[in-house]
Amino acid sequence: MFKNFIFKLKVYYEDTDSGGVVYYANYLKFLERARSELIYSFGLSNKKLLKEYDTLIIVKSCNIQYKKPAKLEDELEIDSKIKSFTKTSFTIDQTIKRKEEIISLAEIVLVTVDKSGKPIKIPKILANFIE
Amino acid sequence: MFKNFIFKLKVYYEDTDSGGVVYYANYLKFLERARSELIYSFGLSNKKLLKEYDTLIIVKSCNIQYKKPAKLEDELEIDSKIKSFTKTSFTIDQTIKRKEEIISLAEIVLVTVDKSGKPIKIPKILANFIE
Amino acid sequence: MFKNFIFKLKVYYEDTDSGGVVYYANYLKFLERARSELIYSFGLSNKKLLKEYDTLIIVKSCNIQYKKPAKLEDELEIDSKIKSFTKTSFTIDQTIKRKEEIISLAEIVLVTVDKSGKPIKIPKILANFIE
Amino acid sequence: MFKNFIFKLKVYYEDTDSGGVVYYANYLKFLERARSELIYSFGLSNKKLLKEYDTLIIVKSCNIQYKKPAKLEDELEIDSKIKSFTKTSFTIDQTIKRKEEIISLAEIVLVTVDKSGKPIKIPKILANFIE
Repeated sequence: MFKNFIFKLKVYYEDTDSGGVVYYANYLKFLERARSELIYSFGLSNKKLLKEYDTLIIVKSCNIQYKKPAKLEDELEIDSKIKSFTKTSFTIDQTIKRKEEIISLAEIVLVTVDKSGKPIKIPKILANFIE
Repeated sequence: MFKNFIFKLKVYYEDTDSGGVVYYANYLKFLERARSELIYSFGLSNKKLLKEYDTLIIVKSCNIQYKKPAKLEDELEIDSKIKSFTKTSFTIDQTIKRKEEIISLAEIVLVTVDKSGKPIKIPKILANFIE
Repeated sequence: MFKNFIFKLKVYYEDTDSGGVVYYANYLKFLERARSELIYSFGLSNKKLLKEYDTLIIVKSCNIQYKKPAKLEDELEIDSKIKSFTKTSFTIDQTIKRKEEIISLAEIVLVTVDKSGKPIKIPKILANFIE
Repeated sequence: MFKNFIFKLKVYYEDTDSGGVVYYANYLKFLERARSELIYSFGLSNKKLLKEYDTLIIVKSCNIQYKKPAKLEDELEIDSKIKSFTKTSFTIDQTIKRKEEIISLAEIVLVTVDKSGKPIKIPKILANFIE
């Protein structure tokens, strides 16, 4: 199992709303970017998983708590780690931070499915990293 | 307390991703549109709440389960109802449906804050509808 | 040729940015919603065009002028009309208005392609409406 | 005048649509990220310009041509250069490339305004870089 994975990003205008803060749905984009980069760090990618392993990773649930608002030009860091896993799913804890401050905490449950949407066992090439 | 509020929308290209389905973060946009229209149905609006009552409604947490994917040109219906409330927060259950099929289930905790971000009591004009 | 097509929408938080106005890219989403509804008004849809006529309508260019900013909760109207057409492309003029004020003016060139991305003649079922 | 500025990005799911390509409005987000990073490369930022110089840079027009579609996980490069300028506006040419292939070409006219939206002279600290 990998220990934890750090992904950094900057907040641009597109991410904010007229409340002056990052729009609540956009944190989920940040979380997904971090998860995609995590997959790349394994030497894999969403495209490769689909093409070579007929595998899509889809989000089953997302439980996110908003602690503090992030703002334009903030530099954020997302820390992702595996919380638990089964044969066909895994749960990732993701923390969005601005330096030491916690912005959001999320628990994401992911499942592996084939092109037709049927749940399948996590392919070994991926399971190696998360178990 | 209002009983339940129905909001309808159609899925456009902007909402989908290259997996051929609605992108998981975009359901949160749909949910927020429904909550904004709910506020309008009370004769209020986000702008009015801010200007006349120094009140912003912010999302404290969002717990969403993805049951089935929605697709391009789907016509969706969001059913929103109050689950519980306190003096300074309220929880809304929102169900996204395509005809009788459940697409997503979400539980959203909202809190009222003033312009400086300090939690405040839900203004009476709003509390009337949610208690 | 249809004369002009009116599409209405409301501005939600998701559309705005921390400048307090609609984010400049999001007007293109509004324009595309209007064009999709225009297609529906012909008794067609993007899905139907793809399935039954192996036709995708893609944007070749977009020239947009921003005249006045739109804001949260604004009710906007988009007026779309055909400017010109060839065998394989057509140009739409789209005006975004808030009551009588012009918010944006856009000229969009669209081309029809098949699934492989090759330009094709506009299918007759669609050409009937735009010529 | 700076010569040209290169900004790199990767395409994530959020950027794509169910046509399997980057959604046409999202290229404008990429362009704006590149322009923000250009401003940072001057030792400035949107926040700093607003706070210290009462200056907002707003988009007056955007003329974008779509040459080839970008796809999930593509690594793109945006090349930005000044095309022309006046006392109160400047025009940037931005090219989005995937290796040597041109994906999009955009010409963006930007104007400087104060908080109230009134056009103002480009502040010297910024003009130094664009003239």
